Amino acid sequence: MKILFIGDVVGSPGRDMVQEYLPKLKEKYRPNMTIINGENAASGKGITEKIYKQFLEWGAQVITMGNHTWDKKEIFEFMDDAKNMIRPANFPEGNPGKGIVFININGVEVAVINLQGRTFLPPIDDPFQKVDELIEEAKKRTNIIFLDFHAEATSEKQAMGWYVDGRVSAIVGTHTHTQTADDRILPNGTAYITDVGMTGPYDSILGVERELVIKRFKTNLPIRFDVDKNGRTQLNGLLVTIDVKTGNAKAVERIIINDDHIFFH
Amino acid sequence: MKILFIGDVVGSPGRDMVQEYLPKLKEKYRPNMTIINGENAASGKGITEKIYKQFLEWGAQVITMGNHTWDKKEIFEFMDDAKNMIRPANFPEGNPGKGIVFININGVEVAVINLQGRTFLPPIDDPFQKVDELIEEAKKRTNIIFLDFHAEATSEKQAMGWYVDGRVSAIVGTHTHTQTADDRILPNGTAYITDVGMTGPYDSILGVERELVIKRFKTNLPIRFDVDKNGRTQLNGLLVTIDVKTGNAKAVERIIINDDHIFFH
Amino acid sequence: MKILFIGDVVGSPGRDMVQEYLPKLKEKYRPNMTIINGENAASGKGITEKIYKQFLEWGAQVITMGNHTWDKKEIFEFMDDAKNMIRPANFPEGNPGKGIVFININGVEVAVINLQGRTFLPPIDDPFQKVDELIEEAKKRTNIIFLDFHAEATSEKQAMGWYVDGRVSAIVGTHTHTQTADDRILPNGTAYITDVGMTGPYDSILGVERELVIKRFKTNLPIRFDVDKNGRTQLNGLLVTIDVKTGNAKAVERIIINDDHIFFH
Amino acid sequence: MKILFIGDVVGSPGRDMVQEYLPKLKEKYRPNMTIINGENAASGKGITEKIYKQFLEWGAQVITMGNHTWDKKEIFEFMDDAKNMIRPANFPEGNPGKGIVFININGVEVAVINLQGRTFLPPIDDPFQKVDELIEEAKKRTNIIFLDFHAEATSEKQAMGWYVDGRVSAIVGTHTHTQTADDRILPNGTAYITDVGMTGPYDSILGVERELVIKRFKTNLPIRFDVDKNGRTQLNGLLVTIDVKTGNAKAVERIIINDDHIFFH
Ligand SMILES: [Fe+2]
Ligand SMILES: [Fe+2]
Ligand SMILES: [Fe+2]
Ligand SMILES: [Fe+2]
Ligand SMILES: [Fe+2]
Ligand SMILES: [Fe+2]
Ligand SMILES: [Fe+2]
Ligand SMILES: [Fe+2]
Repeated sequence: MKILFIGDVVGSPGRDMVQEYLPKLKEKYRPNMTIINGENAASGKGITEKIYKQFLEWGAQVITMGNHTWDKKEIFEFMDDAKNMIRPANFPEGNPGKGIVFININGVEVAVINLQGRTFLPPIDDPFQKVDELIEEAKKRTNIIFLDFHAEATSEKQAMGWYVDGRVSAIVGTHTHTQTADDRILPNGTAYITDVGMTGPYDSILGVERELVIKRFKTNLPIRFDVDKNGRTQLNGLLVTIDVKTGNAKAVERIIINDDHIFFH
Repeated sequence: MKILFIGDVVGSPGRDMVQEYLPKLKEKYRPNMTIINGENAASGKGITEKIYKQFLEWGAQVITMGNHTWDKKEIFEFMDDAKNMIRPANFPEGNPGKGIVFININGVEVAVINLQGRTFLPPIDDPFQKVDELIEEAKKRTNIIFLDFHAEATSEKQAMGWYVDGRVSAIVGTHTHTQTADDRILPNGTAYITDVGMTGPYDSILGVERELVIKRFKTNLPIRFDVDKNGRTQLNGLLVTIDVKTGNAKAVERIIINDDHIFFH
Repeated sequence: MKILFIGDVVGSPGRDMVQEYLPKLKEKYRPNMTIINGENAASGKGITEKIYKQFLEWGAQVITMGNHTWDKKEIFEFMDDAKNMIRPANFPEGNPGKGIVFININGVEVAVINLQGRTFLPPIDDPFQKVDELIEEAKKRTNIIFLDFHAEATSEKQAMGWYVDGRVSAIVGTHTHTQTADDRILPNGTAYITDVGMTGPYDSILGVERELVIKRFKTNLPIRFDVDKNGRTQLNGLLVTIDVKTGNAKAVERIIINDDHIFFH
Repeated sequence: MKILFIGDVVGSPGRDMVQEYLPKLKEKYRPNMTIINGENAASGKGITEKIYKQFLEWGAQVITMGNHTWDKKEIFEFMDDAKNMIRPANFPEGNPGKGIVFININGVEVAVINLQGRTFLPPIDDPFQKVDELIEEAKKRTNIIFLDFHAEATSEKQAMGWYVDGRVSAIVGTHTHTQTADDRILPNGTAYITDVGMTGPYDSILGVERELVIKRFKTNLPIRFDVDKNGRTQLNGLLVTIDVKTGNAKAVERIIINDDHIFFH
């Protein structure tokens, strides 16, 4: 079983990259399933129903979210119907939506979990306690568990990685929009990467026009962050190969597509 | 001109890796100069005079620091004599030490600058304003400028990268102890990476015994963080090749040495 | 029923004030019960068994704590036996101690609860959810419920105040070491103050020698914070009068004793 | 010389209180000058030109601001003409406006300074260094210096108080929207209070409808914060009496007007 994960898709440049390269990636890697982090898919902030449906049409099975989940107000309208979208499971009671989904891939069930960290982020429910509950719930149905841990601090992400090692098939970090080079299979069989990175503007700062971000850092003025729509683009992803019997990862491969890393088939 | 940078060296496992692999890296890559981030070199917290001198003996020319600069109290005794050690230049007035150093490499001067970010870190002086001053100072003597930007947030590091593009030879991020995969040469000729990563325990969390970190995340109890001394180790670095005439970077190469990335000569 | 609460006692200057003035306050106000926040009682950081017992001898019935609960390591030895000490109830599972205690005052039961906020403080369990549980537990035994909410942000403290209005007899804020002037009885009968303030050095910064704190703000150097032991001292407290039948507060009165607010009997 | 300071005016409920009570306060206390913190005057977020002019018409001489300075975009249009409005002086270079203003009161010059803290707030320029510069500038013209230090942490505010003691006539804290009871004259003659408090809705959380704030704390959902417009209101202020010759404070008096503190003339 191969699972392709595509890191935080930012705005139309990110969506264009998904539309263009997801078919090529599927042709090249033959993943059985594709997961996209879509928390920034609508102009960098949240997601719309139209975009959610596009992602499914283009070949994704699950959309994960993060701290930008509620940025677009229309999500409160369609989330209950968006069966393949999950948001961090440790959002407190009173939040719409769900944090775990089961997908049937040719008769094999895959559990996908979304959680969010708390270091340098708002104080939501404990992700470590929640992951125990969700793994227990998932294990009743399947050994194949994929976790998107949306978090800022490398310490929290690595702590979660070691914490779930041997209990999930793969844990991938998202949120920093910067791919890390520490992809590996942990000793008990879990594929791990601190951050998958970002899909969208390449010559930008996390997807935002760089002059805007620099000006904000220099002045602290309330500069609006707009997605950089005129430059080059990139795609960041991760491919995990899983032993269907044990649920253990057998291989993990980073994917970078940009002008410095040309896509070859 | 080739400059080798070694990411945050953590404790004795990190120092052992430097001692073992720096000669091999020198033999393989033939760098003209080696810079080591040493803020965690003494049991994960700060640096001692003995370790500082060891690094120089083992072949480093400059030691950079970060938010852990003052962890070991003896640094206040020897820092004024430690000519080749720099700490973030934007530490406020009243801090001992310096934030820039000039090294003569076979008749060619190299300026090395250390700065620290402010996002998710204490509110020190503005690194963007300080870097302008220091580049101006350095440019009077040389075009070869190497910047270690010790910062947490990917946004602040990338903002600094774009801000100095074309004005320094290389800017490398440190502090997250996790190597990123976004090494590149920016359009105006500056080598960039968001984080070089860490040198020390491999099966750890940022160098610390993983059970301790997990327990702290789960309980918020005041668990003491000890360097993981019994496990496997790694080295993270970056090699930058610079055009001596222009000061521009010509190549950048990530270095990872661990059981999943065996060192070959 | 009158309950006297004494705000964060800091070091020996704070303890001296309690020893000197608690008898006088008892004589003047005739409280049926005294609660002391003791998280800074031992040299500004945590509490020892000796100090805990002194507080009881001097006439307190309950000692509450806060983010400094675990600063003195010996607390892990004696906490299980310290029946009248509570620490924030929303500390995560795995923390020793308890967050609620019932005290019998001449046949009337009083529940005392300790909780900690999360804004600008570590991400522990949700205090709003926890307070619901604890109020339910307490209500089975008594209508007289006293809550020490140890928190930084005025918004979080006022939110908690309004949240429990009519469900507890009194909620007092602690932690900022600065008494607020907003003591009042909320519309549904709960006595409220954002912060009771601090008992200890008067010409200090939160109890610490002022030159040390100023130097740390100016330099960000790792200055050690010592309790100011040589200057004038103060006591900050609050007196709440409660209707024993309903559990509602009937009166609330701020107490300040220092050279600008002389104690009169 | 008497100076009346009115704490953060929040929305129309706050403005109504100023309009109603400023004349009465002037009649009762006969201040020579009135300063209003107006950072929340326009629906809780920023200020408009109309409101700024109203405040002057109603009898204020200076409007100070804070972290909400730029919330209403129109301020960028009129700030250069708003001679009597100041924003924190330690906002970085590139910010419009100024942080110090000199007002002539019957032939006596008064300097009013606005600064902002950095603890739990964005990393702007160092307020301690900036205050030294501004005091030096002001002292060339007058001994009467009034400082509004807009900051969150009690430690930072008290540090600033002690730092400027004897160098300014008065330093008042703003931003927490909660009046503290620690008003005093510091040993070298400076009037001090950690926070003047807030002018606006009384049965609210910092001026905001309390149900909204509670819901946000409980769910972390992106609840919009609206000013509570239907409830009771309050005014928080401070009156400082200054010796014109020395610039030292001779008296300081807290002002609270609400249903629990009826205004008497
Ligand atoms: Fe994102
Ligand atoms: Fe995110
Ligand atoms: Fe480090
Ligand atoms: Fe660091
Ligand atoms: Fe305290
Ligand atoms: Fe505290
Ligand atoms: Fe305000
Ligand atoms: Fe404010």
